[in-house]
Amino acid sequence: MADYPTDPNCIFCKINKGEIPCHKLYEDERVLAFLDIGPLSEGHALIIPKSHYATIDEVPADDAAAMGRIAPAMSKAIMQATGAKSWNLLQNNGSDAGQAVGHVHLHIIPRVAGDAREAPTPGNGLPFKWPAGEVDHGKAEELAKAITDMLA
Amino acid sequence: MADYPTDPNCIFCKINKGEIPCHKLYEDERVLAFLDIGPLSEGHALIIPKSHYATIDEVPADDAAAMGRIAPAMSKAIMQATGAKSWNLLQNNGSDAGQAVGHVHLHIIPRVAGDAREAPTPGNGLPFKWPAGEVDHGKAEELAKAITDMLA
Repeated sequence: MADYPTDPNCIFCKINKGEIPCHKLYEDERVLAFLDIGPLSEGHALIIPKSHYATIDEVPADDAAAMGRIAPAMSKAIMQATGAKSWNLLQNNGSDAGQAVGHVHLHIIPRVAGDAREAPTPGNGLPFKWPAGEVDHGKAEELAKAITDMLA
Repeated sequence: MADYPTDPNCIFCKINKGEIPCHKLYEDERVLAFLDIGPLSEGHALIIPKSHYATIDEVPADDAAAMGRIAPAMSKAIMQATGAKSWNLLQNNGSDAGQAVGHVHLHIIPRVAGDAREAPTPGNGLPFKWPAGEVDHGKAEELAKAITDMLA
């Protein structure tokens, strides 16, 4: 793992190489975790693959597994340190999904009762709405077949 | 892996056991993936560990790694099938984070330009705001130390 793809202009690659400082939380062969400097809440952290990939579909399975592997312990430690009982893991891919830095990163965002929802205030939560639709079972069956065919 | 913790009253455990049908996308020894029946968008899918745990901090590292491992291929297949170019991975822990079913599940939510943001309509995206705060480096240093101590 000495060699992996990096982008000299990427801020997260620079953090990984130590060219930009961070509040580091964890590091292993494949992943790095540190506090977000534009936090949505106290303890807002990021887990990134050391390899530079823009979106999660490009990430090698072993790196994605390493990101997942550390998520439980990282969640536990952050909630213990902050006292939060709820949290979101969020990973945005592409501008229409709110991705702001073009290097895959998994947010861990502690949440507390009454944090901002309708009227967000800086550093006070991740306000989202959940406008659930209703499944069309006929279309879903076709879609599931298309997806499983692509996975095969 | 024949034995793992299940909850007889859990809807996702029932889906996993085949007691409730689903539009299945993928299955291996540790995880199951299927279409969400209350989709935020076409192709909205869930990856769950077969083991029953309420929140990600309780999930064994191997199961969490298995969830991460399949995320790239699953993302790629869903975006190919739906034509979406952006998507969110989201995993909610606890009621203050919007968790609705008490069995860990990772949402894959395709997003398209112009999907609902301020005025959500059913099945048309995941509207969220990003009220970023500003880090207090002194406090962040203390917090990072507390978190790394707990990880050790």
